[in-house]
Amino acid sequence: MADLSEDVSLIGSSEAGPRYWRDWNDDYGAPAPVARPRTPAALVEVVRRLSKLHIPMVAQGGMSGLAGGGAPEAGEVVVSTELLRQIEDVDVFSGTMTVQSGVTLQAVQEEAERHGLFYPVDLGSRGSCTLGGNIASNAGGNRVLQYGMTRASILGLEVVLPDGTLISRLSQVVKDNAGYDLKHIFIGSEGTLGIVTRAVLRLQPLPRERVTVALGCARLEQVLKALVAARRSFGPALTSFEVMWRDFHSFVTRELGIGRDPFNGDAEFVVILEISCFDSDADRDRARIEDALAHMSEDLGTDQVVIAQSLKDAAEIWRIRDASGEVARMLGEYLSFDISIPTSRLTHVLGVIEAGLQDIDPGLRKVTYGHLGDGNLHLLVACTAEFIEPVERLVYGAIAGIGGSISAEHGIGLSRRTALASALPRAEIEAMRRIKAALDPNNLFSPGRVLDMARALSH
Amino acid sequence: MADLSEDVSLIGSSEAGPRYWRDWNDDYGAPAPVARPRTPAALVEVVRRLSKLHIPMVAQGGMSGLAGGGAPEAGEVVVSTELLRQIEDVDVFSGTMTVQSGVTLQAVQEEAERHGLFYPVDLGSRGSCTLGGNIASNAGGNRVLQYGMTRASILGLEVVLPDGTLISRLSQVVKDNAGYDLKHIFIGSEGTLGIVTRAVLRLQPLPRERVTVALGCARLEQVLKALVAARRSFGPALTSFEVMWRDFHSFVTRELGIGRDPFNGDAEFVVILEISCFDSDADRDRARIEDALAHMSEDLGTDQVVIAQSLKDAAEIWRIRDASGEVARMLGEYLSFDISIPTSRLTHVLGVIEAGLQDIDPGLRKVTYGHLGDGNLHLLVACTAEFIEPVERLVYGAIAGIGGSISAEHGIGLSRRTALASALPRAEIEAMRRIKAALDPNNLFSPGRVLDMARALSH
Ligand SMILES: Cc1cc2nc3c(=O)[nH]c(=O)nc-3n(C[C@H](O)[C@H](O)[C@H](O)COP(=O)(O)OP(=O)(O)OC[C@H]3O[C@@H](n4cnc5c(N)ncnc54)[C@H](O)[C@@H]3O)c2cc1C
Ligand SMILES: Cc1cc2nc3c(=O)[nH]c(=O)nc-3n(C[C@H](O)[C@H](O)[C@H](O)COP(=O)(O)OP(=O)(O)OC[C@H]3O[C@@H](n4cnc5c(N)ncnc54)[C@H](O)[C@@H]3O)c2cc1C
Repeated sequence: MADLSEDVSLIGSSEAGPRYWRDWNDDYGAPAPVARPRTPAALVEVVRRLSKLHIPMVAQGGMSGLAGGGAPEAGEVVVSTELLRQIEDVDVFSGTMTVQSGVTLQAVQEEAERHGLFYPVDLGSRGSCTLGGNIASNAGGNRVLQYGMTRASILGLEVVLPDGTLISRLSQVVKDNAGYDLKHIFIGSEGTLGIVTRAVLRLQPLPRERVTVALGCARLEQVLKALVAARRSFGPALTSFEVMWRDFHSFVTRELGIGRDPFNGDAEFVVILEISCFDSDADRDRARIEDALAHMSEDLGTDQVVIAQSLKDAAEIWRIRDASGEVARMLGEYLSFDISIPTSRLTHVLGVIEAGLQDIDPGLRKVTYGHLGDGNLHLLVACTAEFIEPVERLVYGAIAGIGGSISAEHGIGLSRRTALASALPRAEIEAMRRIKAALDPNNLFSPGRVLDMARALSH
Repeated sequence: MADLSEDVSLIGSSEAGPRYWRDWNDDYGAPAPVARPRTPAALVEVVRRLSKLHIPMVAQGGMSGLAGGGAPEAGEVVVSTELLRQIEDVDVFSGTMTVQSGVTLQAVQEEAERHGLFYPVDLGSRGSCTLGGNIASNAGGNRVLQYGMTRASILGLEVVLPDGTLISRLSQVVKDNAGYDLKHIFIGSEGTLGIVTRAVLRLQPLPRERVTVALGCARLEQVLKALVAARRSFGPALTSFEVMWRDFHSFVTRELGIGRDPFNGDAEFVVILEISCFDSDADRDRARIEDALAHMSEDLGTDQVVIAQSLKDAAEIWRIRDASGEVARMLGEYLSFDISIPTSRLTHVLGVIEAGLQDIDPGLRKVTYGHLGDGNLHLLVACTAEFIEPVERLVYGAIAGIGGSISAEHGIGLSRRTALASALPRAEIEAMRRIKAALDPNNLFSPGRVLDMARALSH
């Protein structure tokens, strides 16, 4: 690799620190050499070179992933996008932004706002995660309810295939049915099919204001009723519906001392709603929100409703929700589930899981929260090694066959590959392997992540 | 095929009428035998049988497609979904509907409304087109601006592969990152990769009211300014932004005598806006809309603004736009373009096209309209055979390399295959071929549509 152009910065495996071999989940990989291209063209050059030598590669963005997908294994070379930080174009009129894949989510959000526009994807890791990583993992976050996953905000994509072929479809339009829409094959494929070099993002109109509301509920049924009512009252103006169980919000506000619980620990569930406002008359918009909330609280029989009166107020409420990272760190050894459940099954499924955990060991501590507006639940169970198998069997068993998902947003990577293989029918895994083999016949991109191709080949 | 189960209704090629061999574009195919399964399982049986015999197949829904993709060629068997008309489930709480692929769009829309919910995809062909056809062609329509293409409304999909394998992922959730999202490979693939048997649709909150507004503009720049202003003022409540050039609206209202031009032919452009209302206080919602329109008309310097005061009023306005089918029929021989153009390039590109048409022949009649809110333009050019080549070269040349699309929503099928092959880089076509070969190695599903695989194999 020594004769690569000056546009590639190389770090030998002995100099590359842990930043390059473990992701946010503490899934350790093996020390590996790191190639850091300074331009998209140089990234293509790196892939071509390694491909010719049949050396496997793993793409890395901000390493904030939660599935162990970015950590290198022995014998692999890391292709890091950390020097691909250029925002290449903002087209205010068309509402698009063209970025290199190493640009952080926060940089994109801020650039959009500077132009009076809005990039709606938002995650707790905004400061470190990259657009390439968001695209590879089809990141979700807090505003999926209205704006969809990352997939919905990607108009154009440029990727390099494992053989070094560049597929550059930097489309700037929403509607494009010219042949198979290849970008959708790469989005969410966790670096196993192509490495993203550039993307064209779809920007949205910037709301004049975003109103944050905290709602306290005593029972899960009430939470779900509130969801239906809020969607009906606010329509697409409802951009978030986040729910924290008491085991989560008390943990954060009391044990970690972060944020201020608006209901002083009295609510079993704390719901955070975010409503976007576009009306030029702010009072009229407020009146609309207050009317709807008054109706809701009457219908639900709760008076625990707090409308944030300032940005500071709102930030206080969101801080509790955003402390999920700290919660995880404090749990010691834990299992993390990121599941989707159709709303109509939620109460039943959670009942099964709660009873099952009691059966396995009444001492197991669980922490529950999630993007409930889209049926996405995060469930952390603090448990030592002997409980891993029964707890996973319980949770994945409870959501089998109900039209949900074993991975709502964090992806499969290495950590959920076995769970995926048992959750999906063989025919589906087989179809995924066909796609992988078609685009990466030599298994050079992130081998072993998502799918076990070695096993496929030995069949 | 005679020993197929009773769940398959067969029609011999001599009895099958033209309904089975030509689509709405009058692209004729060859008479062919038709298999009409009565259940999803029977459809799988048909495919397995034909696959074993290496007989090529073409899927058919309502035959309202505009790309010649559904018409059979010699030697093919039609697999029609017209007997797969069951709505299998509506889950009001989760906001989902499970349908068989032969259900019409209109049936879905009506069923959703019966449950107080909303299926937002809407096309002029709603009465005849099927969900399977919508999915296969990733249909767009009038509300893409807010709700996206058909793709955005599909949560789960069941398809049969060309070898008879059933891939059944009837997911009911928005967030599902468990492995490659196979549904996105099939959506928009025009029946060349899989035949849809069932789908789970995402339903939306039903707006209390939808307000239709007609706006007259003198220049294209004004139209585009209105688009930016409307998006900023209404945010996600703006669900349609349709534009008719004078060559379209005068044709419809004067020559065809359909609808009533709200500006008596005085406007160069007629824009139709649709705004969704969710406020429980209808007057407050009206006031918001009126304020925003007052601002807009002042900024734009037009007083041609009409707010529909009744459903009848609104229908009168929409009738003009919906007459696109009749316009096409009246043009005689014509070329139909369905292109996407980034908003910032629109004025320039249209200028090039208009000047170019003048150069080719000042007598060429053109008709222009489209879903301009998403940059999607429909352009019909009445012209005889000798002009086809220069006009296509002009239009596709004008949009080359600007991040647009040669087919915004109607797809490729047979009619745009050559245009696709010249518009896209070789690497991209090659990647599409790899996908096709991976899922349909014997080229049994709709051979020759979208991609020319024969040519691929002979390389
Ligand atoms: C505090 C915190 C909160 C989070 N909240 C959410 C949340 O709400 N919703 C959610 O969905 N996720 C969340 N995440 C996880 C989320 O997936 C990541 O933050 C982000 O999407 C990954 O981006 P990254 O640049 O850090 O990617 P990395 O961690 O570097 O990589 C992630 C995966 O993408 C691949 N990859 C990286 N760059 C490229 C590229 N250019 N081309 C191809 N493949 C590439 C890697 O190989 C790896 O498989 C959270 C993480 C943290 C730490
Ligand atoms: C008046 C009119 C207005 C229209 N307006 C719009 C518009 O605004 N936006 C837009 O996008 N389109 C529009 N269209 C075209 C649109 O693509 C079709 O109406 C619709 O999506 C096709 O559905 P269909 O059931 O008629 O499919 P068909 O015409 O039967 O088939 C279309 C394609 O899908 C394939 N197919 C059909 N069923 C299946 C299945 N079950 N599995 C796999 N493949 C299948 C066929 O092989 C073919 O390639 C319009 C058409 C008309 C006539």
